[in-house]
Amino acid sequence: MTTNFFIRQLFDHESYTYTYLLADLQAKEAILIDSVREQSARDLKLIQELGLTLKYLLETHVHADHITGASELRKSTGAKVALSAVANVAAADIGLNDGDELSFGAFSLRALQTPGHTDSCMSFVCNNYVFTGDVLFVRDVGRTDFQQGSNGKMFDSITNKLFTLPDATIVYPAHDYQGRSSSTIGEEKKFNLKLGSGKNREQFETAMAEMKLALPKKIHIAVPANLRCGEVD
Amino acid sequence: MTTNFFIRQLFDHESYTYTYLLADLQAKEAILIDSVREQSARDLKLIQELGLTLKYLLETHVHADHITGASELRKSTGAKVALSAVANVAAADIGLNDGDELSFGAFSLRALQTPGHTDSCMSFVCNNYVFTGDVLFVRDVGRTDFQQGSNGKMFDSITNKLFTLPDATIVYPAHDYQGRSSSTIGEEKKFNLKLGSGKNREQFETAMAEMKLALPKKIHIAVPANLRCGEVD
Repeated sequence: MTTNFFIRQLFDHESYTYTYLLADLQAKEAILIDSVREQSARDLKLIQELGLTLKYLLETHVHADHITGASELRKSTGAKVALSAVANVAAADIGLNDGDELSFGAFSLRALQTPGHTDSCMSFVCNNYVFTGDVLFVRDVGRTDFQQGSNGKMFDSITNKLFTLPDATIVYPAHDYQGRSSSTIGEEKKFNLKLGSGKNREQFETAMAEMKLALPKKIHIAVPANLRCGEVD
Repeated sequence: MTTNFFIRQLFDHESYTYTYLLADLQAKEAILIDSVREQSARDLKLIQELGLTLKYLLETHVHADHITGASELRKSTGAKVALSAVANVAAADIGLNDGDELSFGAFSLRALQTPGHTDSCMSFVCNNYVFTGDVLFVRDVGRTDFQQGSNGKMFDSITNKLFTLPDATIVYPAHDYQGRSSSTIGEEKKFNLKLGSGKNREQFETAMAEMKLALPKKIHIAVPANLRCGEVD
């Protein structure tokens, strides 16, 4: 990998969300994945310090736990907002389909349709990294109990798509609640609590049924706002 | 850099501390930098999953804001605890001096004496990474108002030692309070608020004098415990 490839993980302490800035430091073009509205000023400052032109604001899905910074950052940077076409977000600039590629400088990022947590979840592959949103977490997976969540689709997305990436691929999730910043595909194939070590579909569904989680506190504000790319009335 | 080099950042949400696991995945030897007592089980589990032998538990300094996990993890792994010889920690296994090297598999890590935040602060250089403890933060520096802190030493440590590393060196600090996971030496030379853009010693001291911080909540428990490598009575 060339030394012009830049990647920076950022974290929001309130929603435990990871945001990722990717850039070509030579061409000065960048992509921001899963921004958080309250962190827009921080992220904009970093983009400006590094002299980057933000081309795309990507969302792995329509988040239920925080409001995206996409609307704010689109206004200040002119970047295009992109997420799955399945999400049907009229305010987005680009509806992504499985296999679509977005370029920034000499690099490109490939969108993979990975439904399960929601029907419109995507993962993004770039160099030896995969950004897995709320589908594949470190040692766990996202919940499937709202927003068209589906255990069957989750199992297929992870085992048939994400687990076919090379073992050394670094997994960058949208959240972790225990301070674990990343994983690898190889680690998750072995150690993921829900479907590592070759657990089958039935074992996965049993494990998922045992998850008992309260609704995200902000769901009734976040989902409608995120369907407008984070525009708040 | 060979693909056997492994690095993983970990975070403690209570003290905002970053812990770093470094390893040679071929030789299966590892080093853990700045562990947190409450996260010992998490870190031990990761070390065991990856099949690593932990050789060293390193401390960048005697922390005032959290208790190190070194004592707990030494018991369960047999790793040697290492920190600056200046710290005079009798319970440590190794007292490090400026320029000392510690090896793990095919890799080695070099200790740099970087006093300022405390008199016994060290930074650790490994491949294109530098672990800067509470000396150099992202866009800021550590406080100098207790534990033999010194503005003059801090200025010298950063400008004469850390800023002579290559610009592309990735800076991994012991803390960040705004979700910024890392920086680079090049970025800090330009954008550090206290001494970036060629600010001189006088400007640095003026900026430091304006810091108004409460004492860390745990200082009266953490410092005595950390002088025993985190052993709690």
